[in-house]
Amino acid sequence: MQFAHIASAYSGELDYLTKRIAAMGGHAERMVEQAIAALVHGDPSLAQKVVRDDSVLDEAQREVDDKAIVIIARRQPMARDLREVIGAIRISADLERVGDLAKNVAKRAVVVADGGQPTRLFRGIEALADLALAQLTQVLDVYATRVVEKLGYMRDRDDEIDAMYTSLFRELLTYMMEDPRNITPCTHLLFCAKNIERIGDHATNIAETIHHIVTGEQMPADRPKGDKTARMMVLPPKPTA
Amino acid sequence: MQFAHIASAYSGELDYLTKRIAAMGGHAERMVEQAIAALVHGDPSLAQKVVRDDSVLDEAQREVDDKAIVIIARRQPMARDLREVIGAIRISADLERVGDLAKNVAKRAVVVADGGQPTRLFRGIEALADLALAQLTQVLDVYATRVVEKLGYMRDRDDEIDAMYTSLFRELLTYMMEDPRNITPCTHLLFCAKNIERIGDHATNIAETIHHIVTGEQMPADRPKGDKTARMMVLPPKPTA
Repeated sequence: MQFAHIASAYSGELDYLTKRIAAMGGHAERMVEQAIAALVHGDPSLAQKVVRDDSVLDEAQREVDDKAIVIIARRQPMARDLREVIGAIRISADLERVGDLAKNVAKRAVVVADGGQPTRLFRGIEALADLALAQLTQVLDVYATRVVEKLGYMRDRDDEIDAMYTSLFRELLTYMMEDPRNITPCTHLLFCAKNIERIGDHATNIAETIHHIVTGEQMPADRPKGDKTARMMVLPPKPTA
Repeated sequence: MQFAHIASAYSGELDYLTKRIAAMGGHAERMVEQAIAALVHGDPSLAQKVVRDDSVLDEAQREVDDKAIVIIARRQPMARDLREVIGAIRISADLERVGDLAKNVAKRAVVVADGGQPTRLFRGIEALADLALAQLTQVLDVYATRVVEKLGYMRDRDDEIDAMYTSLFRELLTYMMEDPRNITPCTHLLFCAKNIERIGDHATNIAETIHHIVTGEQMPADRPKGDKTARMMVLPPKPTA
């Protein structure tokens, strides 16, 4: 009886971690959505809300960490249970970073709003964010259902994000070259795009962690990491003499 | 006898983790130094070496993770020992990220080299990197000696890095406005500067982890996180009519 009682308290603790992570995930998704909305619609009060909301994730991460360490010390989990607990520590760190990146986008929203940039640049950012958010939603869904077979699709979306970020990078640089007044707002948009691309990377990290939790194996490391813009040279148009 | 034997094998395992982390730290420092040298002197073969060297850290992180999980499962460490093992997982993740950031700087070195940018911009990057590297070296020294009292000094250097990054950001944007041909190389230098600033952040993360390992307490959270450039507007000079 006593034993069953302990076991059920233990599984309750693991459930608590899982629920806390799911809540962090939902919060992070909302922050990203609202940061992008604040950027695209130039909404400073929404931007400020996102900046304030970040502390929720910081605190949640700290709580997940503390809780996880108490579980390890008290319950001495093994195998899959241990991977669950260590996995929770990792995933909460990734989600906390997603919140930081959303906050950074929100901060830039205010400066960009004053620049009056053309709609098509915002559309590019929005499309990139949609892909990264879809990846985040998918990975959180796999965390909830543990159907790891769905993780395979993420690779293709990685490539899509990569291609879209690369074309946005080129477009922003070209636009900066057209008029020096575009340089400050477009620099902020460049950093926003980079932040979104990194949100996609964190989604992929989370996918790898879930894969490890469920299977005990590392995901095959064929993912091409790092964006392709690091070596990109964009030249100003030739002056029409 | 048997018990003493187990205890000593265990402390040997913890020592192994600590040594592995120290080696990762040395490797990460070298990568940062060489990435900056490749950038400043436009040395593509050194840049390629840094890109190749990154896989060492990826592999070391995976090994530390696996080893740490085996230690937790087999030895069921408590209190300080448990914090050591969880701390090793966290620190190796930060060092792996430092390697990624150094690799990204190295990749950009090749494009920047073709741009023929003025020496003073490189000097700014170098000075920023010196600060971040000093922080990394100090924190690795504290990890080796466990004299956490030395961590207090890091806060001041955080502020210095912040101020220097902010002024470099402004300088690079101004320089981009002077001539559209500067835009691509200076964008890469902006991302390099951002990467170096983030290397400083990872050093601070490591400081916080060491503080937690040794004292069991979180470091007071008065650190002002996030760079100040996110809200910065730099305007082109007025045309001299």
